[in-house]
Amino acid sequence: MSATAFLADFHHVATFGATENQGVDRQAATPEDKLSRDWFAAFAAQRGWELRVDSIGNMFALVEFIPGAPYILIGSHLDSQPLGGRFDGAYGVIAALHAAERVEQRIKGSTGTDSGEVRYNLAVVNWFNEEGGRFAPSIMGSSVFAGLMDEDEMLAVRDLSGVSVAEALAEIGYRGTDPRPQAAGYAEIHIEQGRILEREGIALGAVDYSWYTQKLDIEVLGEQSHTGATAMADRRDALVAASKVVLLVHDVVGQFEDEAIVSSVGRFTVEPNSPIVVPRRVHLVADLRSASPEIVAAARSSLLADIAKVAEAHDIRINVRDFDIRDIQRFPQAGIELTQKVAADLGLSVRPIRTMAGHDSVPMNRIVPTVMMFIPSVDGVSHCEREFSTDEDMVAGVDALTGVAWEMVHGALAAETVA
Amino acid sequence: MSATAFLADFHHVATFGATENQGVDRQAATPEDKLSRDWFAAFAAQRGWELRVDSIGNMFALVEFIPGAPYILIGSHLDSQPLGGRFDGAYGVIAALHAAERVEQRIKGSTGTDSGEVRYNLAVVNWFNEEGGRFAPSIMGSSVFAGLMDEDEMLAVRDLSGVSVAEALAEIGYRGTDPRPQAAGYAEIHIEQGRILEREGIALGAVDYSWYTQKLDIEVLGEQSHTGATAMADRRDALVAASKVVLLVHDVVGQFEDEAIVSSVGRFTVEPNSPIVVPRRVHLVADLRSASPEIVAAARSSLLADIAKVAEAHDIRINVRDFDIRDIQRFPQAGIELTQKVAADLGLSVRPIRTMAGHDSVPMNRIVPTVMMFIPSVDGVSHCEREFSTDEDMVAGVDALTGVAWEMVHGALAAETVA
Repeated sequence: MSATAFLADFHHVATFGATENQGVDRQAATPEDKLSRDWFAAFAAQRGWELRVDSIGNMFALVEFIPGAPYILIGSHLDSQPLGGRFDGAYGVIAALHAAERVEQRIKGSTGTDSGEVRYNLAVVNWFNEEGGRFAPSIMGSSVFAGLMDEDEMLAVRDLSGVSVAEALAEIGYRGTDPRPQAAGYAEIHIEQGRILEREGIALGAVDYSWYTQKLDIEVLGEQSHTGATAMADRRDALVAASKVVLLVHDVVGQFEDEAIVSSVGRFTVEPNSPIVVPRRVHLVADLRSASPEIVAAARSSLLADIAKVAEAHDIRINVRDFDIRDIQRFPQAGIELTQKVAADLGLSVRPIRTMAGHDSVPMNRIVPTVMMFIPSVDGVSHCEREFSTDEDMVAGVDALTGVAWEMVHGALAAETVA
Repeated sequence: MSATAFLADFHHVATFGATENQGVDRQAATPEDKLSRDWFAAFAAQRGWELRVDSIGNMFALVEFIPGAPYILIGSHLDSQPLGGRFDGAYGVIAALHAAERVEQRIKGSTGTDSGEVRYNLAVVNWFNEEGGRFAPSIMGSSVFAGLMDEDEMLAVRDLSGVSVAEALAEIGYRGTDPRPQAAGYAEIHIEQGRILEREGIALGAVDYSWYTQKLDIEVLGEQSHTGATAMADRRDALVAASKVVLLVHDVVGQFEDEAIVSSVGRFTVEPNSPIVVPRRVHLVADLRSASPEIVAAARSSLLADIAKVAEAHDIRINVRDFDIRDIQRFPQAGIELTQKVAADLGLSVRPIRTMAGHDSVPMNRIVPTVMMFIPSVDGVSHCEREFSTDEDMVAGVDALTGVAWEMVHGALAAETVA
């Protein structure tokens, strides 16, 4: 049974980089990431599919029906956060591999009347570095593919230990030279990472738009001094000021309606980080997300004003820089309707849903008609080891992705213009 | 002129691990530390002094007058903080080398009437890892010498990249096997690292006691989740809670008289430290110091209660552990009087002074009669690149240390019992 085969593969991939508490640690271009990539390549080879690896490490498994025709891409990413969950990304890639196999079997086994006219080829993609935990920014491989990030600039990005993307990819043998397949459409299925579907008991989300997001790169510059010998009044402690910045970023959401905006500081690095030295510098990255660009702008203004006050009070310099601004993206209405039709055919409940997290589908939606779907997340948690989705929900999602891929290779959404 | 020779050596040693802004970065057992150690060894070799390196990396240059007699040790440490100053520690070692040379010349050049009866030999010491920035705890080499820290335990301490003390010492060729000289007394001169001497225009401080110090090792355990997709209400953000702990540690001093206690957080490490992940764990080290153990105890109790409230409010676990507790140490009154006598002979102003910072003299004072002296620090800053003392003050200090060493090899303080 194909559901069994899918589940066996899913739980096998979860052993690559497995952690003690049921999670995975499979950051981009690490030896653990290589294990999952080798598995992806073997899956394609066993089915006679051509494998391509491009120069930013994206992998494509090509299922050709019509020589020379463009491709409907389906997939997600196999990399994870440090101590991340085993569903985020990996579910979408493995679902896509099985969906592609089913579509291929049905088309090749058909008499011609069943399948209608096939218009496109199909390719399963494993995007490089969606997570961005090791190499910032996130959503790197698909953004380079979509022409939204510069490839050379991304290859030069370094991790905290000084290794570049180009070096790390070469190290694991996945800095490719193959041409990229020409895309005609994209579909992705992913765990929700929130609790709306679970709360409402709905099997499938048809993503209608992505939240507006922006980051602030914040550098707090104090003065290094001796923790024992320097009088409190003579200190310019970068960590004390930076701690106030963290609380400002956390508290700014209180100025708006509940859950209208989320904020956080995920990266926070102290220098020199010695137990008996008053810190000289803290570098931190704040993340602001909302359905409304105006709310993000208002939160940002409020933060800039409050951060300036902290700097003044502590006689410290705080540099704040905007970066990684991602506008709201609306997915095509025809794609939402396609998801609803496929769900109805399968007897699955479905609702429109927004995504607060970024996904590879967001840059892809800038260049080709794109369908994004969610399955439920238990407790709504993600980017952690206890991230969970049920086998039943995963299997239903594979069925839905198969239906969407089938329709798209037959020309559904082909008439859609890209925004 | 010997002052010129001292200054030339001092400014030469400051080139080892020199930073762009007049500081040094010469952490324990790094290649930069090795440069300063090689220089120390060459200084001894050029004068025919025997060099010994013990198994924790302490270096001793032996100036022998009476075969078989115990040694008066004089010295400090050549290692520095990351981006530290060029005076802290290095001044005391170089001053001791020149003081030893002068004492030797005077004794060997004397007719016997000038020098009185010499009772002890003299040894200049460069203690291993006083700073503790790379390998915690600080004041490691002298504490092992004094029997206050276990040598095997210290050799097994690892830096943040996993290298042990034993490995790092072997790597630079300073994991020695020589016997330690038997100590009969210890003298050290150091920069004040505060602004009392500068403010009062006094040349020399005779250290009477060290402050009570203790550290708190604090682990904040939240839950990792997605910065975008996880609702604010569902998060258990370790960094937000840890930021509140930093501010509690900073603000606790406000419960006491001005400068009666100093507090700080110097080490603060976030996991997983990814821009789009809500942090799961923060490890931080708080440092509390006061002349009064009761004040430290009161601050600690207040902090424990407030930290428990933060943990409860954030539904987060915070583990707090006491460590590195160092009791007040009083230096012998006879040593303070000796410093005052030597200063008077040289026409230098002098006053008793306490030390808020730890020094190698503190463990040495537990086993032998010990004299600790300070020279002024400009602006009172230390552990940073703009740490500064004037050539004039440094030269006066070498004269004072020479006088003290001279008296001690002749038996001053020999009658002192050790507390």
